[in-house]
Amino acid sequence: MRTEPTSGHDLRHHGDAEVRDDGGTLVDLAVNVRADTPPVWLRERIAASLTGLAAYPDGRAARAAVAARHGLPVERVLLTAGAAEAFVLLARALKVSRPVVVHPQFTEPEAALRDAGHTVHRVLLREADGFRLDPAAVPEDADLVVVGNPTNPTSVLHPAESLVRLARPGRTLVVDEAFMDAVPGEREALAGRTDVPGLVVLRSLTKTWGLAGLRIGYVLADPETIAELERAQPLWPVSTPALAAAEACVSPAALAEAEEAARVVAVNRAYLIAGLRDFASHGLRIVEPAEAPFVLVRVPDGAAVRERLRTLGHATRRGDTFPGLGTEWLRLAVRDRGTTEGFLGALRQALGG
Amino acid sequence: MRTEPTSGHDLRHHGDAEVRDDGGTLVDLAVNVRADTPPVWLRERIAASLTGLAAYPDGRAARAAVAARHGLPVERVLLTAGAAEAFVLLARALKVSRPVVVHPQFTEPEAALRDAGHTVHRVLLREADGFRLDPAAVPEDADLVVVGNPTNPTSVLHPAESLVRLARPGRTLVVDEAFMDAVPGEREALAGRTDVPGLVVLRSLTKTWGLAGLRIGYVLADPETIAELERAQPLWPVSTPALAAAEACVSPAALAEAEEAARVVAVNRAYLIAGLRDFASHGLRIVEPAEAPFVLVRVPDGAAVRERLRTLGHATRRGDTFPGLGTEWLRLAVRDRGTTEGFLGALRQALGG
Repeated sequence: MRTEPTSGHDLRHHGDAEVRDDGGTLVDLAVNVRADTPPVWLRERIAASLTGLAAYPDGRAARAAVAARHGLPVERVLLTAGAAEAFVLLARALKVSRPVVVHPQFTEPEAALRDAGHTVHRVLLREADGFRLDPAAVPEDADLVVVGNPTNPTSVLHPAESLVRLARPGRTLVVDEAFMDAVPGEREALAGRTDVPGLVVLRSLTKTWGLAGLRIGYVLADPETIAELERAQPLWPVSTPALAAAEACVSPAALAEAEEAARVVAVNRAYLIAGLRDFASHGLRIVEPAEAPFVLVRVPDGAAVRERLRTLGHATRRGDTFPGLGTEWLRLAVRDRGTTEGFLGALRQALGG
Repeated sequence: MRTEPTSGHDLRHHGDAEVRDDGGTLVDLAVNVRADTPPVWLRERIAASLTGLAAYPDGRAARAAVAARHGLPVERVLLTAGAAEAFVLLARALKVSRPVVVHPQFTEPEAALRDAGHTVHRVLLREADGFRLDPAAVPEDADLVVVGNPTNPTSVLHPAESLVRLARPGRTLVVDEAFMDAVPGEREALAGRTDVPGLVVLRSLTKTWGLAGLRIGYVLADPETIAELERAQPLWPVSTPALAAAEACVSPAALAEAEEAARVVAVNRAYLIAGLRDFASHGLRIVEPAEAPFVLVRVPDGAAVRERLRTLGHATRRGDTFPGLGTEWLRLAVRDRGTTEGFLGALRQALGG
């Protein structure tokens, strides 16, 4: 459906393509959405909003709720139709001449920048450095820098202060915190900070709450940037059900539930990683420490392993569409212990015992 | 929330603002959404889609259903987050140097073009001509022409062949058919036509089906234009509930229900117009023939009349935000007979007996 930008990687490949046409037969370790979501209480809140569909969406209450959740005035908040819309707005609305994307990371920011006509400079973090951020690697003249934290697909959580060191007068620093609510305590979060010049934080409600189908996310930034982005939005950009969800997901009870979910992810991730360590003799390497609800691994002949896993009923996310990675890389979603055990069994078969 | 483009009219004023903060106390003749919508069967279809929210939206089935409804291949269909998104895509994605908007009409197309940096030329249809289209009034060098059919707010239905005469090689002809499904038989529709060069038809499901809060609409055009617009869309632009609604609203049963609703509108509109004729002695003039689910009237001292109507519990749509109209113009949504009787009573009071 989308043309590929002129780069060696299919930046428009996403994990949902790995499970889209399998008729629901594959165990999904490809898509980073929490299992068994959305919870029933949230689905009921969204369903209740359907009685008001005849009215045009009114985003004011949801915007105020999100602002309050981060201790910010509403002028620093913009609700968007998912983070995907935010990337398009950033690419099209901001005056930018030298955008830099720190890879490997979610490819949509670069794809949106290219589609908007920008030439994108890539900073490639290295496996040898554990894909950790080196602020000195970012060109001094970059006026837009995009970095994910924790980073998809490496699962690396950069220290907040490393990111802050990327801020400059005249530079927009975009930190994609789409997975930050899956980090216990949201440690290293920059959301809510107003002391970092040019900071733009993106947040998603998709992964923790299972709302990928609803298109809801938000941007936190200084009021001038928010106003610029808002002018580039279509009228009524966020639907009434999505607004209801946003309001519900920032309530104190929801935040407590997300925090608990983050702790469960940490336990399940430790279990997955412990299991993966058994394959060190097959040459499997794990990017650690992993802090997001997925784990990046390198495995010899990865593309064939991925195909064998599919035959064995397990979908994983190919790594080769991420700049800086190749076919030997696979991203694995953290699942419950039973699912992980099933996957590890399949992996053993796929690796030949 | 939005800055006003540099024009004499607030192009970003919409009918929903007339009833947004009244606490539900006003009888709404300002917003052109069919009353008692969405119907229960449709709300149930949408609610059923909520169980799949954890997955990213997959628009293929809805796109195919919309294409089939118009007898077109899927390559000629693009689903959008409401017509509002379509206007932004048209303004930003197409290479246009001399856009022309035929007024009075829905102001969002011009606002989107201005926001995208275009200088917009206006063609103003005249009251003396019954706001009927004069193809000769459109400059020959216009490479984008936007016209509504039936037109909001004039309720004029232009003959399809008048519109076809606006088509030219090298020109994109955008016909906003947002209200066409409220015209019995969809007479004068261009949707589904493939013999008109540069034709782009916009459709909405908002008004007939009461889905303003859901953000769903679609574009019909040649495959090259569709591909250009699609490239400018964010990833996953239409939510899963909106896709479910689109698929449901183009089923044969839904089309039959819409056709019946259109016939009811025609009867109710005739009743409203008959009632309005009684105010000819007060100087009230009706734009006729009215073919959309609203009626445009001119009444001396219209702004004051509108304020008095609000005091009497009735919201009407101000006309002065539409280029070509002034404060004496009011747009009235067609409602059921009881609501209309109540309104006509209030109008009698507002006009001083």
